[in-house]
Amino acid sequence: MNTVELIKKKRDGKTFTNNEISFLINQFTKGKIPDYQFSALLMAILLKGMIPSETAALTNSMLNSGKIIDLSSLKGCKIDKHSTGGVGDKTSLIIAPIVASTGIYVPMISGRGLGHTGGTLDKLESIPGFKTNLSLAESIKVLKKCGAVLIGQTKEIAPADKMIYALRDVTATVESIPLITASIMSKKLAEGIDGLVLDIKTGNGAFMKSYQDAINLANSLIQTARSFNKNVITFLTDMNQPLGNYIGNWLEVYESIQVLKGNVKNDLYLLSIKLAGTMIYLGKKAKSIQEGEHIAKQKIEIGEAFKKFLQIVELQGGKVNYIINPDKYPKPKFVKKVLSVKNGYLKEINTYQVGMASLELGAGRRTKDDVIDYKAGIIFYKKIGAFINKGEIICELHSDSGTKIISAEQMIIESIQFSKTKPVSPKLIKKVIQ
Amino acid sequence: MNTVELIKKKRDGKTFTNNEISFLINQFTKGKIPDYQFSALLMAILLKGMIPSETAALTNSMLNSGKIIDLSSLKGCKIDKHSTGGVGDKTSLIIAPIVASTGIYVPMISGRGLGHTGGTLDKLESIPGFKTNLSLAESIKVLKKCGAVLIGQTKEIAPADKMIYALRDVTATVESIPLITASIMSKKLAEGIDGLVLDIKTGNGAFMKSYQDAINLANSLIQTARSFNKNVITFLTDMNQPLGNYIGNWLEVYESIQVLKGNVKNDLYLLSIKLAGTMIYLGKKAKSIQEGEHIAKQKIEIGEAFKKFLQIVELQGGKVNYIINPDKYPKPKFVKKVLSVKNGYLKEINTYQVGMASLELGAGRRTKDDVIDYKAGIIFYKKIGAFINKGEIICELHSDSGTKIISAEQMIIESIQFSKTKPVSPKLIKKVIQ
Repeated sequence: MNTVELIKKKRDGKTFTNNEISFLINQFTKGKIPDYQFSALLMAILLKGMIPSETAALTNSMLNSGKIIDLSSLKGCKIDKHSTGGVGDKTSLIIAPIVASTGIYVPMISGRGLGHTGGTLDKLESIPGFKTNLSLAESIKVLKKCGAVLIGQTKEIAPADKMIYALRDVTATVESIPLITASIMSKKLAEGIDGLVLDIKTGNGAFMKSYQDAINLANSLIQTARSFNKNVITFLTDMNQPLGNYIGNWLEVYESIQVLKGNVKNDLYLLSIKLAGTMIYLGKKAKSIQEGEHIAKQKIEIGEAFKKFLQIVELQGGKVNYIINPDKYPKPKFVKKVLSVKNGYLKEINTYQVGMASLELGAGRRTKDDVIDYKAGIIFYKKIGAFINKGEIICELHSDSGTKIISAEQMIIESIQFSKTKPVSPKLIKKVIQ
Repeated sequence: MNTVELIKKKRDGKTFTNNEISFLINQFTKGKIPDYQFSALLMAILLKGMIPSETAALTNSMLNSGKIIDLSSLKGCKIDKHSTGGVGDKTSLIIAPIVASTGIYVPMISGRGLGHTGGTLDKLESIPGFKTNLSLAESIKVLKKCGAVLIGQTKEIAPADKMIYALRDVTATVESIPLITASIMSKKLAEGIDGLVLDIKTGNGAFMKSYQDAINLANSLIQTARSFNKNVITFLTDMNQPLGNYIGNWLEVYESIQVLKGNVKNDLYLLSIKLAGTMIYLGKKAKSIQEGEHIAKQKIEIGEAFKKFLQIVELQGGKVNYIINPDKYPKPKFVKKVLSVKNGYLKEINTYQVGMASLELGAGRRTKDDVIDYKAGIIFYKKIGAFINKGEIICELHSDSGTKIISAEQMIIESIQFSKTKPVSPKLIKKVIQ
C-alpha cells in the first residue's frame, strides 16, 4: 500500500477498507509513516469524515496497537463511565466508589486537564501521595482488592492513540468526531470492560458546544461501542453552567467528599446518582436504571460509598487523613469574594470563561509543562435562575497570586449576565440513548 | 500569530489576511513551522480553497522568499511561456529560439519530468554537454548574448516554492488550484518578465483532466498575473493525444530540430507558431497575434530560428554537432515496431498510459533518484481520426531494455481504441483568454 495514494483517497472523500486503516495505524505507530504525512491524513479525515465501519476499524487498530487488560480472573461485571468533560465535572470521583461498593468492578482510565476543563488525574493527585501512574499489574491488584482503580493511560494502553493525539493537538485536528470516537473508545475497550455509560456534555462550557454536534458524537460512540459488542447507555447532559459548585482540583475533591458523605444534594449529586445507577444496572446489580439509582443513594446514606473512596485513596497511596479531615488541607494565600454589583436573576454564565478564570488562578495548564496549584480555583455559589441581590456573594476565588486573582475576578464578572425576569434553568439531563 | 489557530482558520473555511499568509510562509521557510503543521495546512487549503486575494498574497510571499532576477540592464521586452505539461509537449524548445530571434528576451525557468510527463530540463540535458544549472550571473550573460536562456530553478529563486512543493508531493496536496498557481507564478514572476503566455493543457494526458478544472486554473493564473500587472494571454489546448509524434527526451529534441528547420508542419508546429506568435505580440514586435504568427513562420523559413537554437545550445555548453547531425546520436539497443492487429479508425488514445509506457522504456522517473535513458521513448505515428490497416505501424518503441519494451508494447496496445466510423478529431486550441 502507498501512503500518498491513501491520503489522496480520503482527501477525495472515499472510504477506507479495514486493511488500509490497519496499515496506516501500524506504519505510523512504527514510525514508518512520518508525522507530516499523517497530519495531512488527519486533516483529510477531519474535513471528509469517516463512516461508522471506518471509525470502528480505526478504533480497533488503535486498541490493538497496545495491550487489552486481561480482567478474566475477576468474577463479575466490569463497567466504566466516560464523560467528554466540562467545568466542575467531578462525577468520576463520586461514581467509582459508589459503583465499586455494589460489587461491580470499575477499571477507570482518565486524562489530565488541558484548556478550560480539569482532568480527573490532576484532581486525584491533589490528594497528597495519591499515585495515578500505577503499572498494569499494580492496577489489577488494586482493582481486585477494592473494586475500583483510577489511573492514567499507561504506555501499554493504545500507544497509537497517544501518538495521534499529540499530533492532533498541534495540527488543529482535535475536533473530528471519528478521531474523538476512536481516541475515547480505544482506551475504554483496552480496560477490558463489559459495559459503558457515556456522559456527553453540551453547552457553552463543553467541547461540543452545539446540541447537534453532541448528538453526532454520541451516535458515533454508541455505534462503535456496539460494533465491539459492548453494552452502552448514553446521556446528553448540560454544560451551560459549572457542575456542582466547586471548580479546581482540591476544591473538586472537597465537594466530592461532601456528596459521598451525603452532605450535599445539588446537581452534581443528581447526575452522579443517575450515572452510577445506570452503571449498577449495566453491571446487573439492578433490574432498571431507577433501581440502580435507588441503590446508589442507599450506598451514600449508609456510608459505604465514602468508605470505599477512603479505601481507593489508601490503596493508591493517598493520605486518607485529608479525606477524613479535609479542612486540614493547605489554604491558598488569597481568597477573594466576588460580589454582585446589581440586583437581578442570574441569566447566563459563559462557562468556558469561568473555566479559563480557574486556569488563570493556577488550577489548570496553558501548556503541557505548566505546574498546577492544587489549592487554586473557584467556589461558584449561584446557579442560573437564582435571584441575586446587590452586594451578595456570587463566588469565591482561591489563589496564591494576588495579581491573578484580580484578572480572574474581571473574567468572572464579564462571564455573567443578569435579567429582570426569571429565566428558565437549563435542563440537567437533556436526553438518554439506551 | 499562532500556527494552530491559523490552521484552524483555514480548516473552517475562513480567509487569511496578507499578514497571516506572509507569517506562514516566512516561518515555514525559516524552519520555524514544522513540516507536520504545514502539511495539515496544505490539506486544509486544498480542501477549503483560497480566494484570489489569498492566492496573490501567497504568490507574493513565495516570490519574496528569494530573489527577483534584475533584467533592467536589458533593453526590450522580456516574455516567457508556461505550459502545464503533457505527453510530447516540447514547445519550449521551439518557441524560445523563434521568439529570441525577433529581439525579445526569453528568460525561461523550467522543471524536470515526474510521472507520465517529460520535463524541459531533462530534454535539454539529453544534448551532450548542455548545462541547465547555470548560476544567475551566467544565465543573464547567456540571455544578453543570444536573447534566451533555458535553466532550472536556482536556489535563489523562490526557495519557499521548492520546500512547499517537496511537501505537497508526499502529502497528496499537489492538485490544489491556489497552490499550483502560486508555485507557477512565484517562479515566473522571479524571472523579471513583462508578459507571459500560458498554455493550459486539458484532456486525458494532462494534469487537469477536465475542461472545467483547466478553466479554473487558467482563471486563477490570469487573476494572479494581473494582480502583479503582468500582461498575460492564455490558451486552453488539447492533451487527448501526444503533441507531435515524438515522446522521450532526445526524441523530442530531434522533433524540435525538424520543426525549427521547417521540415515538419504537424500539430506541434501549429501550436508552437501560435504560442510564439502570441509572445511576439506581447513583446511588441507585432501588432496582433496573427502578425506575430506570420513572423514566427518567417523565422523558421529563413533559418533564423534554427540558427538561434544552435546559438543557445552552444552558449549553454551543448555539443552543436548533434543538433547539426542528429543522426549521429547514440542509438537504443532495441527498436520495436507496434503493428495494428485490426482495421479501423483510431478513436481514442489513453495519453496518460502512453506517457507511462515511455517512462517504462526508460525515458522518465518513477522516483526522484531514477536515472533517465535519454535515447528511450516512443515515435507515435498516428493521430486520432486516422484510418489504420491491419499490420500497419502505429508506433515505434526505443529502449535499452528488451523486457521493458515488451511490457511497454502491451501498455500501448491497451491504450488505443478503434472505431468503424471516422471519429471527430479533438480541437487543438480549445479556447483563448486574452
